[in-house]
Formats: sequence, structure tokens, C-alpha cells
Amino acid sequence: MSEVEEAKSTGSVQESLQEVLALLSKHRIVEQLVHKQDMRKHELVESLVHKQNLAELRKKLDTLHPADVAYILEALPLEDRLIVWSLVRAERDGEILLEVSDAVRETLIADMNPEELVAATGQLDTDEIADLAPDLPEEVIEDVFEALSTEEREQLRAAMSYVEDSVGALMDFEMVTVREDVTLEVVLRYLRRLDELPDHTDQLFVVDRAEFLKGILPLGKVLVNDPDRLVSEVMIPDRVRLEPGQKAETAAQAFERYDLVSAPVVDERGKLIGRVTVAAVVDYIREESESEMLNLGGLREEEDIFASVWKSAKNRWMWLAVNLVTAFIASRVIGLFEGSIQKLVALAALMPIVAGIGGNSGNQTITMIVRAMALGQIHRANAKALLTKEIAISLLNGLVWGTIFGFFATMLYHSLSLGLVMMAAMTLNLVVAATFGVFIPMLMHRLGRDPAVGSSVLITAITDSGGFFIFLGLATLFLV
Amino acid sequence: MSEVEEAKSTGSVQESLQEVLALLSKHRIVEQLVHKQDMRKHELVESLVHKQNLAELRKKLDTLHPADVAYILEALPLEDRLIVWSLVRAERDGEILLEVSDAVRETLIADMNPEELVAATGQLDTDEIADLAPDLPEEVIEDVFEALSTEEREQLRAAMSYVEDSVGALMDFEMVTVREDVTLEVVLRYLRRLDELPDHTDQLFVVDRAEFLKGILPLGKVLVNDPDRLVSEVMIPDRVRLEPGQKAETAAQAFERYDLVSAPVVDERGKLIGRVTVAAVVDYIREESESEMLNLGGLREEEDIFASVWKSAKNRWMWLAVNLVTAFIASRVIGLFEGSIQKLVALAALMPIVAGIGGNSGNQTITMIVRAMALGQIHRANAKALLTKEIAISLLNGLVWGTIFGFFATMLYHSLSLGLVMMAAMTLNLVVAATFGVFIPMLMHRLGRDPAVGSSVLITAITDSGGFFIFLGLATLFLV
Repeated sequence: MSEVEEAKSTGSVQESLQEVLALLSKHRIVEQLVHKQDMRKHELVESLVHKQNLAELRKKLDTLHPADVAYILEALPLEDRLIVWSLVRAERDGEILLEVSDAVRETLIADMNPEELVAATGQLDTDEIADLAPDLPEEVIEDVFEALSTEEREQLRAAMSYVEDSVGALMDFEMVTVREDVTLEVVLRYLRRLDELPDHTDQLFVVDRAEFLKGILPLGKVLVNDPDRLVSEVMIPDRVRLEPGQKAETAAQAFERYDLVSAPVVDERGKLIGRVTVAAVVDYIREESESEMLNLGGLREEEDIFASVWKSAKNRWMWLAVNLVTAFIASRVIGLFEGSIQKLVALAALMPIVAGIGGNSGNQTITMIVRAMALGQIHRANAKALLTKEIAISLLNGLVWGTIFGFFATMLYHSLSLGLVMMAAMTLNLVVAATFGVFIPMLMHRLGRDPAVGSSVLITAITDSGGFFIFLGLATLFLV
Repeated sequence: MSEVEEAKSTGSVQESLQEVLALLSKHRIVEQLVHKQDMRKHELVESLVHKQNLAELRKKLDTLHPADVAYILEALPLEDRLIVWSLVRAERDGEILLEVSDAVRETLIADMNPEELVAATGQLDTDEIADLAPDLPEEVIEDVFEALSTEEREQLRAAMSYVEDSVGALMDFEMVTVREDVTLEVVLRYLRRLDELPDHTDQLFVVDRAEFLKGILPLGKVLVNDPDRLVSEVMIPDRVRLEPGQKAETAAQAFERYDLVSAPVVDERGKLIGRVTVAAVVDYIREESESEMLNLGGLREEEDIFASVWKSAKNRWMWLAVNLVTAFIASRVIGLFEGSIQKLVALAALMPIVAGIGGNSGNQTITMIVRAMALGQIHRANAKALLTKEIAISLLNGLVWGTIFGFFATMLYHSLSLGLVMMAAMTLNLVVAATFGVFIPMLMHRLGRDPAVGSSVLITAITDSGGFFIFLGLATLFLV
């Protein structure tokens, strides 16, 4: 026990990874030797050194927490990953599949046959099977269903029906329930009959005969109160009750705001159907913030760093294509003014500055508005004030940066009028950026779309084409 | 109680905000009426309607959870925010100051006098006071120190000494400790003597006489085991033990990986000095992901959406300045080729496409590498394989997109050689983007800097100037 537990301590997962890498490279050296020898020696060596290495690796893996094995699998190239995966004890397959990232899970499942997959789900709770289900072949899911009890089948069907990022998708069914008309002594006796409490049981749920939620009973209250008192005297009203159809983000905000460890989930009539734990919420928050980062960078989804070139390229094309279309439009805008550029070639050198400052400034506005919207801080009453403020900032920025770059342009090209056009164009493009920076996320929100996705591409498209048009247009009017 | 608790349920914080806004606007109408009347009527009205409105608002605020009051304060413009703040009961000031964002906290503290501030800290634990300390005037901190016991002073001094984003900064001192040589019955009696358990007490910490950590005793084990058993028989080794100097991210990863609710913090000799709870970890993860988003958008820090124009502009200038310098350099690169552009003006229209695709593709590479580095998945053994893979992807992309845009260029400007230069330049700039996209984050990591900050600006600078240089350079060599 102690060895297993020690292996779990922080920091050591890095050391474990190094150990696994060392054992794998020993294994590979032996394999290369074997290939250089004839077949008889092959068998001999294989049966001795080779197997010994793998046995050592297997032993190491057995001591690791499933989350740590998952971490190591993610850090290995495909070939090594499948060697390690084949060494993991079959009864741990299920919990490890739960822990790895989607991209890596795919590669592991592709390596397993249907019987292994059905066996892997055997160790899991129904809510966990539901998490794996989207990646499993249909025949496996059918076999899994057959192996379950009627109640579990019902749970699995419900769990699989909840959309991603809903409270239902975070929910598990491991809640402990008690009745309100019993004493704490009875509750304590009941708990003692359980071998152990489910993880994250910080409170028991008080329900009536029809499973309607009446309140909650924190474990602390069970411990500090006189055992002769009734549950109904000690229980407290439930602070937060979630419904399976609510957004997962709602649950995350409640957990963050009220520092919860678990919360009950009820159906529309108030019947207790499950609970959400802080562990599921922490995973959700991490995944959310990662996928936001990836989306901002234009990666469609989580990418296995060892995925094939072809697969990685496909993951990135969507975004590149969108950006190239906007770049093409900007290019055609410049094309409109080719005559002016030929007459005054300085325009070609200065125009990216005007487009660039618009893009940067517009993205700053959008970042701030999207964040405030996610926190629900923007409502009709203050939208106008925000727009006014952003436009005021853009005018101030235009004045400051426009003057500086107008001065540079004047000095470089010995033309005051070019400097003035530069300043005017920068200011105008900043105002455009501020206006659309406020409007785009609000419009997307009104249309029921996530303002965090795509807003940045849109604003850059507008400030690029807009910046070129404003600068080259003003120059054509006043300079050429 | 029930009303207070109901007010806390999810979703209702939005309703509460609407209610507060309605009451505030009623209040403002009365004030405007008053200003139109003479002074005597003023007093009369003020003493009646006016006060009634504010009393209603105060009553509403009293029913709200501190986190909800904080949320409402953040969503209000400065003037309204200070009205609401003045109505909050003084004894709740401390916990609400803890909950609001840094930018809003500054505005609230600026509105309080030293006595109020000292009183506000009176309700807080030492680790919480340490969180507020950076925002408090020095005189207030001195007064706070004087009001504490010797032990608390020591704790506060320690808590204030930990750097931001360290385990020490997440730590609190509310752990319950027991000895290993007593029975669970004794533990139960001891717990019953406490009025209530500290929040997030999912386990008790087993220590010896000198406070050295011997193991942990989950509450579940106390409940399900026979009360006659000894703590030493039932306790388990601590899975994770943190040290105050470790990075907060280490703690966050451990909590996420092992689904913890609390974890002990020990000094270098193994003496228990505090604990970290999942509530602190959730707040940390949220703040981290927000500040990453803000940094990506070029906002230096959290910005109060109602901050003054001047303050907001200052927050955004740093980034704009950096971007303008890189845009200026790119502009000078174009300046080098003004002769070529004058001869072949199509170059001006096509060059932003070459620069743009490099920037997008380089940012994709960086996003992926930074994420893999944060997860510790990149080590010397696989760095070369990653670089090879990224360059292969960039060659593939160059072939595909280069052909498409080379074809467009050929059609638009009736010049096959222009199309071929376009294709070659796109491919080359993509290879540059892939190479620097891998090297920049690795170099920053080697230099001990956070690769997430600044990598994106650097790659964009390189692919912009580089893209212009490659395209215009090739065009000058082969076309002009």
C-alpha cells in the first residue's frame, strides 16, 4: 500500500515518465540486437532479457495511479504508447481510458478488440461508461447494455442522452440518501454498514419516500451533533439544486461561488436523480479553458502531439482556410488602389501598420467584452456606456499613436500631408475596431452563438480590409 | 434561514442583479426629483421615500451570499457600486472584499477609511487577511498586526511572505489534527466538541507530538469503522503532501489528477503547517485561465469594465506599443523593396496573404507546443520528432494553399511566374513559422520564462517581416 501511495505524490509523475522511457529504450535496444541475430538466438534472448524488461515495466505501471498511467500514455509516441498499453492490467483499462485525452483515447481503443472493450467497461459506473460511449463501436455498446441490470440500463440511457457541457453530462449516481424522520444514530449505523463512502461525499441527501429532495445533511453535522437528534432538526435547505438540462457552466459558477464539494441534481419535479462533484467540475473547467485556448489558436480540437502529419494538418485547415479567405478579400481591397500605390509607393509600406493597430485594438475590446458577457455583467442598461467608453479609448489611442506614426511617416517620406493621412486613417480604423469589437460579440450572443468562437477572426477581417480601404481611400482622395 | 438559502440558488444571482438595478434606478429618480425642489422639500422627501428605497436595497443585500454581493458590485458602474457598498453591513465587508476582483477591490478600498478597513479584517482568518494585504495601506496593516494574537501574527507573517502563485499563497490554517494512538470514539467525541467542522474538511490530519504529519484519516473512515479501532489502524498514508514553496500549478495538477478535496502542506522537515482546499484550487484555476486569455488579448491585467477611459487605455498601451514596433519593422522591410513594388504593383496586393498565413500557422504551432510543455509532455527525446512533424505539416500546407493562391495570382495578374513566386514564398514562410513556432517556446522555457506570454507576439513579428522579405525578395530576384 505504502509504495503505491508514495508513487502518487506530486512531482513523481515526471520521474515515473523518465523511468518508463528508460525501460522502453532498454527494451528497444534488445529488440534491435535480436533482429541482428538469427532466429534461434532470437527466441533465446526474447525469452530472457526481453521479457525481463517488460516485466519490470509492467511492475512499475502497476504501482501507478490510473491518472499517472494516462499521463504517461499521452506523453509517448504511438508505438511506445501501444507497448505500454499492452502491459497495463486489463482490469485497469476502463479507469485509464476515462483519464486520457480524447485524441489519445481514440488511438488506444483502435488497438483493442470488442471483448477487451466490453471487459474494460465492466469496472466502471454507468455515468463513466456514458463518458466513453461516443468513442466505442456500436456492437460494443450493445454488449455493454446487455451486461447491465435494468436500473443501470436506465441510468446509462439517461446519462448518454445528456448533451455535452450540460449538468447531466457532469452528473454521477453515487449519492447517499437518508430520510428526515430518523435519528443521527440511525444514520451513523447505516453509514457503518457501507464498506466505504463514495468519493466526495461531504453531505448526505435527505429525501422523502418518493425520492423528492427535502434538504441536505453535511457529514460535519452528523459528526458534531448529538446522535439522538433527528435528521429533520439538523438538516439544512439545499443551497444549490441543479437540473440535468442546465449548462455545465452554471454548475461551475455555483461551485466556484459557493465553494461546494457536491451538489444535488433534481428533475423538473424536484426528485433527486444524481449529484455533481467538484472533481467533475474541476475537470470541466480545465477542459473548457484548454479548448478556449485551442480555439483561439485555430486548432479545432485537442491534438495528440504525436498524431500523424495528415491528421494534424486536417485539424488546422479549417482555420487557415477562413483566414486565407479574409486575407484574399483584403488583398482585393488593396487591388482596388493599385493605381494610387504605383504613384505613391510609400503607401504599400505604411498600410500594414494601419491594418495591424486596428486588429490588435479590436481584439483587446473583444477579449474584454466576451469576458464580461461570460460573467453576465453586460445588460441593456450599460451597453451604451461601454460602447461610448471603447470609442473614447480608441480616439485617445488614435491621437497618441496616430501622432507618433504620422510623425514617422512625415520624416521618412518628407511629406506632412502623408503624415496627416496616416494619423487620420489610424484613428478611423481604431474607431471601427472599437465599434465592431463591441457589436460583434453582442450580435453573436443575440443570435444564440458563443461569442468567444469566431469573434477574433471576424474583427481581424474587418480591421484588415477596413484599414487598407480607409488608408488607401484617404490617400487617393488627398494625396494622389 | 430558508430565504437566505433560497437566494443562493443558481441563476438567481442574475435576478438579484436586476432587482438591485431596479431599486437603484428608483433611488436615482427620487434624487433627481429632490434636486428640482427647494431644500426644505429635499429634506422631507429624503427622510421618507428616499430612505425607504435604500432600506429595501439594504434588506435585499443582507439576504445575499457574499459572493453574490461581490458579483453585483462588479457589474455596477462606480457611482452605483459605491452606493451599494455603503449599504452593506460593516461586518460583511471583509468577506466581500475577498470575493471581488482585484480591480473592483481597489475602488472599494479607496472608498473606506483606515478604521473601517481594520474592522473589515477583524472577521477574517489570517490567510484571508494575507490575500487582502497587498491592497491595504501600510498603516492599516500595522493596526491589523497589533490586533492579532502572537500565533496569528506568526501565521500572517508567513502567509504574507509566500509569493503569488505558490502553494503557500493557496494555503489556509483551518486543519483539524488528531493523534494516531487514540480510538475513533475519542476522535468522534473531539469532533462533537467543535461547534462545526471547517469548510472542506474531508479528512483529518494525523500528527505526532511535534506536529509531524504521519498520515491522513478520511471522515468516511471515521464514520464506517468500528469506534473502538485505533486511528493508527484506520489511517492511510498521505497521497499528496505539498510544500509552501511549490508552484500553485503543481497543487492544481495534483487536485485534478487525484480528485482531492484537501491536501496537507508540510515544511521541509515534514511538519504540518497548513492545508490547501479544492475551493482555493478552483479559484486559482479560474484566475489562471482568465489571465491567460487576457494576456493573449494583450490586456495586462484584469480590467474593471467600468474603469475610466484613461485607466483602460494605460492597461492596453503596453501591448499596442509592442505590436506597433513590430509593424514598424515590417513596414521598413517593405520599404526596402519599394522599387520592385513600383515596377510590379501586384506585389503590394499579394504580400499580406503571405505574411498572414505564416502568422496563423505559426500561432497554431505555438499553441500546441505551449500546451504540451505545460503538461510536461515535451522532453529532449521527442523534441526533434516534433520539429520534423511541424515542418512536414508546413510543407504540406505550403503545397496545398500555395497551389491554390499561386493559381489565383496567375489568373488575376496573368503571370505564371508571379504565381510560382507566390507559391514558393508561402511555403517558405510556413516553414519559417513552423521552425520558430517550435523554437521560441522552447527557448523561452530554457531561459526560465513563461512560454505562454509573448510567444505569440514574437512569432507574428517574425512571420510578418519574414513573409514580406521572402515574397518581395523572391519577386525582386525572379520577376522584376
